[in-house]
Amino acid sequence: MPNWEPIEGDLATPLGFRGAAVAAGIKKTHAALDLALIFSDAPETAAAAVFTTNRVVAAPVLVSRQNLIESRGRCRAIVVNSGNANACTGRDGLRVAQETARAAGKLLEIEPSKVLVASTGVIGVPLRAELILRKLPRLKRELSAENAAAAARAIMTTDTVPKTCVIRSEAKGKAVHIAGIAKGAGMIHPHMATMLSFLATDAAIGPRMLQSLLSAAVEDSFNRLTVDGDTSTNDTVVTLASGLSEISVVPGNASRAWFLEGITLVCQTLARMIARDGEGASKLVTVEVLGARTPLEADRAARSIANSPLVKTALAGADPNWGRIICAVGYSGARFDPNKVDILVNDLYLCRKGVDAGFDEAAAHRELDRKELVIRVDLHAGGASARVWTCDFTRDYVTINAAYRT
Amino acid sequence: MPNWEPIEGDLATPLGFRGAAVAAGIKKTHAALDLALIFSDAPETAAAAVFTTNRVVAAPVLVSRQNLIESRGRCRAIVVNSGNANACTGRDGLRVAQETARAAGKLLEIEPSKVLVASTGVIGVPLRAELILRKLPRLKRELSAENAAAAARAIMTTDTVPKTCVIRSEAKGKAVHIAGIAKGAGMIHPHMATMLSFLATDAAIGPRMLQSLLSAAVEDSFNRLTVDGDTSTNDTVVTLASGLSEISVVPGNASRAWFLEGITLVCQTLARMIARDGEGASKLVTVEVLGARTPLEADRAARSIANSPLVKTALAGADPNWGRIICAVGYSGARFDPNKVDILVNDLYLCRKGVDAGFDEAAAHRELDRKELVIRVDLHAGGASARVWTCDFTRDYVTINAAYRT
Repeated sequence: MPNWEPIEGDLATPLGFRGAAVAAGIKKTHAALDLALIFSDAPETAAAAVFTTNRVVAAPVLVSRQNLIESRGRCRAIVVNSGNANACTGRDGLRVAQETARAAGKLLEIEPSKVLVASTGVIGVPLRAELILRKLPRLKRELSAENAAAAARAIMTTDTVPKTCVIRSEAKGKAVHIAGIAKGAGMIHPHMATMLSFLATDAAIGPRMLQSLLSAAVEDSFNRLTVDGDTSTNDTVVTLASGLSEISVVPGNASRAWFLEGITLVCQTLARMIARDGEGASKLVTVEVLGARTPLEADRAARSIANSPLVKTALAGADPNWGRIICAVGYSGARFDPNKVDILVNDLYLCRKGVDAGFDEAAAHRELDRKELVIRVDLHAGGASARVWTCDFTRDYVTINAAYRT
Repeated sequence: MPNWEPIEGDLATPLGFRGAAVAAGIKKTHAALDLALIFSDAPETAAAAVFTTNRVVAAPVLVSRQNLIESRGRCRAIVVNSGNANACTGRDGLRVAQETARAAGKLLEIEPSKVLVASTGVIGVPLRAELILRKLPRLKRELSAENAAAAARAIMTTDTVPKTCVIRSEAKGKAVHIAGIAKGAGMIHPHMATMLSFLATDAAIGPRMLQSLLSAAVEDSFNRLTVDGDTSTNDTVVTLASGLSEISVVPGNASRAWFLEGITLVCQTLARMIARDGEGASKLVTVEVLGARTPLEADRAARSIANSPLVKTALAGADPNWGRIICAVGYSGARFDPNKVDILVNDLYLCRKGVDAGFDEAAAHRELDRKELVIRVDLHAGGASARVWTCDFTRDYVTINAAYRT
C-alpha cells in the first residue's frame, strides 16, 4: 500500500465530518472558545476510544465509556468542553455529562448513546449544564467543514498553540484521510494525562478493528509522552471512521498494517506537538534507551530519565550533566553494568563506559541548546530499546502551575 | 526508661568523639569547608551504615561498604568531602576512595578498614586524591570536640543551613547522648538520595544491634522524605557508637526500644530539616494518608502526592487545588472509592466524600501559606496509614538545578 503524506487540512478533511465551536462561558476568559461539536454524517460511522487509567475518573469518561459499549462502537458525535474537567463533581457531575449526551442526541436526531462527551480543565468545580445545553442548538446550526478547524482551539487549556495533523494516502485510485486534533500541555505522562485527542478518518473500518489499531497507536505515541509525571482523570482519545472513502481496512490484509501506520503517524505527530508545547517548555526531548535486557527495562529506564526533575532542569539550562542521567537509570530498576554505559546528546558522547567522555563543554552546550534534541543511553546489557518524548522543566512551568486554579 | 530530650550541642557531645573540617579546594568556592574528619577515641567503637539503593554506586560507597564488613562493624573514623561525588569516575575514582581510607588509617594508627569514606557533589568529574591526602595531617592535628561542629558545614552542597540534632537521656544515673549531622537538599527521595548523615552516640551497643536499629530508624525517617523524586549514587547514613557512657543497649531489653526511639528521633529531626531546606523550598509539607487498604498502598498514595510536580507547584502557590491531590492518589495504584475520599489541609476540609467541601477560599489559602503544613487524605478504604515529608516546588528549584554543574 502507498505511503501516508502530511497535508494541510483540519478535522473536516476526511469525507463526512463537520464541526463547530463556540464560547460558552465555561472558561474564565470571556469569549474564549470552550465548547465544540464534532459530527459524522455517515450513519454507519465506527468509533473507538482509549481512556485514562487513573482510578479517579471524570464523569464524561464514565458516560463516554458507557455510550461506546451501548452503541456497539457506532458513535457519531463528540461534545467536548474546556475550562472545567467535570471531575470529582459527584452525582451532579454525572448528570451534567449524561444530559449533554442526551440533549445532543435529540438535537442531532441520533440515539444519545451515539454521542461521546469529553471535558478538560479544573477538577472539583461543578460544571453548569445550562452553559453547554443552551449552546448546543447553535453548535448544530453552525456545523460545517469550515467551522471544524475551530474545535482544535476550543479544546485548549494551557496549550499555547492548537494541534492538528492531517495525512492522506491513496488506495485503488481513491483518496483516504486521517485527521486529528489534540490538547495537552502539563500533566502529560504515560497513560495519557489531561490529554484529549480526536481523530477522524474516511477509511471504512469496523469498530472492533478500529479499537485494536487505535489502542496500538496510542501505546506507541501518547503513552510514550511524559511532561511532568502526573496522569489525569479525563484523558480521552477518540477516533471516528465515516467509511466514505469506500476504502476498507480488513483483518489479515495489507490494509491493516497500512492503516496502523497512518493512525500511528497522526498520534505520534500530535504527541510530539504536545511535548513541544509542555507547560513552560523550551525544547522537545526524545529519550532513547538502547541495549537494555528487556523491553520493560528499556521503557523504565527511558521514563526514569524523562521524569527526573533534575534531568529536566539540567536540560532547561542546557547543562551536559550526564551524572543525573546515569543516576536516573540507576534507580529505574533496569539491570546494567554502570561501567559499560554510554550517554550521548544527539551524536556527541558525554559519557563513555560509565565515565566522562572528555567532551567539549561548549559543543555539548550547543547540542543541548537546540529546540529538538535526542538523549541516547546505551546500557550495553542486551538488545531491547525504548523511546519516550518529554520536554525540559523551566521556571515558567512552576509559574504556570502555581497559579493555575485560583 | 526515661525520655530523650533535645539539647544544644554538636557531633562531639557524646563522649569519645572529636572532629575537624578544612577547606581543601574541592568545592569551587574558594575557602569553603569541604573536607571533614570524624573520629571516635574508643577502640571498641561500633559502626553501622545504610547506603543508597541506586544501581550506580559511587566509589566511596563501595569502599565504605567493604570496610564495614572487613572491620566487622568496628569502624572508628569517617572522612567525608563535599564538592565532588566521586561517582562515575571509574577505577581511578575507586583508587582515590581506597587511598583516602588507607592514608587516614595510617595517620590515625588504625586499620584502613576502620575508616569509612563518603562524598557528595557533582557526578562524573575526577576527584583529585592529593586534595584530600595533603589535608589529612592537618585534620588529624585539629581533631577536637570544639572543631567537630564544623563537620556539619563541611558536608553542605546546595544546603542553605547546617543540620545538627543532639538529644540526651539518662539511665542508671548516667547521661547518654545521640548526636547527628546531615546534608541534603535536592534529590531527596525514598531510599535517601544525595543525602549524607553521620550519627555519634556514647551508648554501648554492638555493631549488629546498632545496624538493625539504624536501619529501622532510617526507614522511618530519611526514607519517608521526598523532595524531587530522584535518588542518588552516594547516599550514606553512618552511626558510630563509642560505648563511653557505659550504658548498654541489649537485645530483648527495654533499652532496645529506648535507643530505637532516640535514634529515630535524631533521624526524623534531621530528615525534617532536610525537607524544610529542599532546594528552593518555601515550606515543609507532611503528607498523611489514612484509611488505606494496606500499608503499602498507604505509602504509595502518600509518595504519589508528595512526588507530584503539579501538587508541589500548587503548594508553592498556596493554591487549594485538591483535584491534583486526588488525581495523584488515583494513579498511585492504591485501591479506593473516589466518592469516599476526604482531603484536608491542617484541619480544614477541602474535599469531602470526593467532592468540594465548600471551603472558604481565603481560609484555605492561609492554611497553605504556613511554613509547615499537613496534607491529610482519608481514603476510607481500610485501616492502614503512612506519612511522608516533602517540600513545595518553586521557581527557585528550577533556577538552582538548571545551573548546578557548569
